[in-house]
Amino acid sequence: MPGGQVPDVADLVERARTGDARAVGRLITLVEQESPLLREITALLAPHAGRAHVVGVTGAPGVGKSTSTSALVSALRGAGHRVGVLAVDPSSPFSGGALLGDRIRMQVHATDPDVFVRSMATRGQLGGLSLATPQALRVLDAAGCDTVIVETVGVGQSEIEVAGLADTTIVLLAPGMGDGVQAAKAGILEIGDIYVVNKADREGASEVRRDLRTMLAPSSRPTEAWKPPILLTTANTGEGVDEVAARVDAHHRWLDTHGELQRRRARRTRDEIEAIALASLRSRLARVNVGRDMDDLAHSVLARESDPYSAADVLLEAVMHRDT
Amino acid sequence: MPGGQVPDVADLVERARTGDARAVGRLITLVEQESPLLREITALLAPHAGRAHVVGVTGAPGVGKSTSTSALVSALRGAGHRVGVLAVDPSSPFSGGALLGDRIRMQVHATDPDVFVRSMATRGQLGGLSLATPQALRVLDAAGCDTVIVETVGVGQSEIEVAGLADTTIVLLAPGMGDGVQAAKAGILEIGDIYVVNKADREGASEVRRDLRTMLAPSSRPTEAWKPPILLTTANTGEGVDEVAARVDAHHRWLDTHGELQRRRARRTRDEIEAIALASLRSRLARVNVGRDMDDLAHSVLARESDPYSAADVLLEAVMHRDT
Repeated sequence: MPGGQVPDVADLVERARTGDARAVGRLITLVEQESPLLREITALLAPHAGRAHVVGVTGAPGVGKSTSTSALVSALRGAGHRVGVLAVDPSSPFSGGALLGDRIRMQVHATDPDVFVRSMATRGQLGGLSLATPQALRVLDAAGCDTVIVETVGVGQSEIEVAGLADTTIVLLAPGMGDGVQAAKAGILEIGDIYVVNKADREGASEVRRDLRTMLAPSSRPTEAWKPPILLTTANTGEGVDEVAARVDAHHRWLDTHGELQRRRARRTRDEIEAIALASLRSRLARVNVGRDMDDLAHSVLARESDPYSAADVLLEAVMHRDT
Repeated sequence: MPGGQVPDVADLVERARTGDARAVGRLITLVEQESPLLREITALLAPHAGRAHVVGVTGAPGVGKSTSTSALVSALRGAGHRVGVLAVDPSSPFSGGALLGDRIRMQVHATDPDVFVRSMATRGQLGGLSLATPQALRVLDAAGCDTVIVETVGVGQSEIEVAGLADTTIVLLAPGMGDGVQAAKAGILEIGDIYVVNKADREGASEVRRDLRTMLAPSSRPTEAWKPPILLTTANTGEGVDEVAARVDAHHRWLDTHGELQRRRARRTRDEIEAIALASLRSRLARVNVGRDMDDLAHSVLARESDPYSAADVLLEAVMHRDT
């Protein structure tokens, strides 16, 4: 299809639903580029989505996320699942695309028609995971993926965001990547549904597990609560990964039984609606925030004739009273 | 002052201007907590701010940022500067406060009345550096700091944000932290005004410098452009840090001479005005986005009676037509 042509979105969605990988890829690209067709795409996809189990995989650089994700995909495929993978890389804000490395590790699945792998670069100002990712997720969901893995680098806020997006969050650690203080620092102790100590063949893996166990010790956890397991894997060889897949399934069932799956999905939907509304407000701001008016406001602050809050009032006034 | 009492902001600002460390600390706390007094604080500070040279220090975890910042503070103090430090730690979204480690490393400056050190935790949803940091910066600026160092962990988007905030951005590297591909991945090659290879006493430091030099080779750089130097330091011992301080000064003069200082400040002010306006819109959204209405919207999407965009329209309608 020529680049300049407006894509037939209804046709793309129909083809994506049959599992056409090119249509899936094209839709995710449109979502990622925040195409003007996004609204139409979302409306067409929404009736066919909402079934996928969303699994977040996060961990610090170097713990073996891509290898683990790839091994988990194999295990889930072995159990008959159709699997989508969104590898979100917040560390490459400039690339506008994803890094080759992740894709290469996933190439073992390249010829499997029931695996969809997609790398996404998060954009700086547009809120990282918050807008494009749930919509890319919906594409994979509507394409019949019953499990979608969202893989993020666990640094900064991304692991928190993925926990908000996922039904089940897997936190990966590895020996030699820093001690318990590091784990606490990254805030991962609050978000894991399943903890995996990868590179279990290396020295120190059982110590990492022991430390984690101590830190995760249930203090006043209610008896019906999910107790996050701590598993050991060697993703390179696949050792222990079937057990991870089994726990992913078990957590999914637990969520469903306890009404938590519905609650997480309702929260996720609220978050998405709010993110779309916020993006709309932001683009209204951006349309006002061009040219002379905005420069004048900045200069009045720099000249100490105004302050940033008063200047923001002027900007808001323009946003709220302009019909767009 | 009792916790429940409304602080006398005008008095705090007056005292901060005389360099009263407690008043400075209290104002930054109010800024960080997004106190309802923020607007008043900003208006009171704005006439007294706008002089400080803002220096960003960023780099991956482990390169020695805190040690380097502390050594740079010593060097700048030696040259007679009054220095503020904001250590922004985006990796601790849950802590609501900063880590002890950074503070400990800075304790050498604890008794110096012309050094103000403050750790800030960035908050998840409120846009990281984008709102509280420029305002904390204004507090230190109004308190007479002629140099304010903003230290961020260089992962994800934070190093990009600090580059937007700073007049001069120092990018720290160290041997053994990954190769040139890592550097490129982090997007640091676009943002540094000064590159520092720390831990120069370790093997591999000169290779890091050589690789950096290759990657930074000016292709079509105009002759009057600033050429980012690549310096070697051993921050632990202070070796090479005076040279960093000298280059920071040189870059400041260069910016001033080339009109770039004004341009960067105008851009920073525009960004801040926009961030304030956006935060205001966001809080309007949040006020609407509570209770039954929002749950109903989410459920209509989950029940496939609506889609997220149509639901967002309803939300926006409520935001735009509610007088707040």
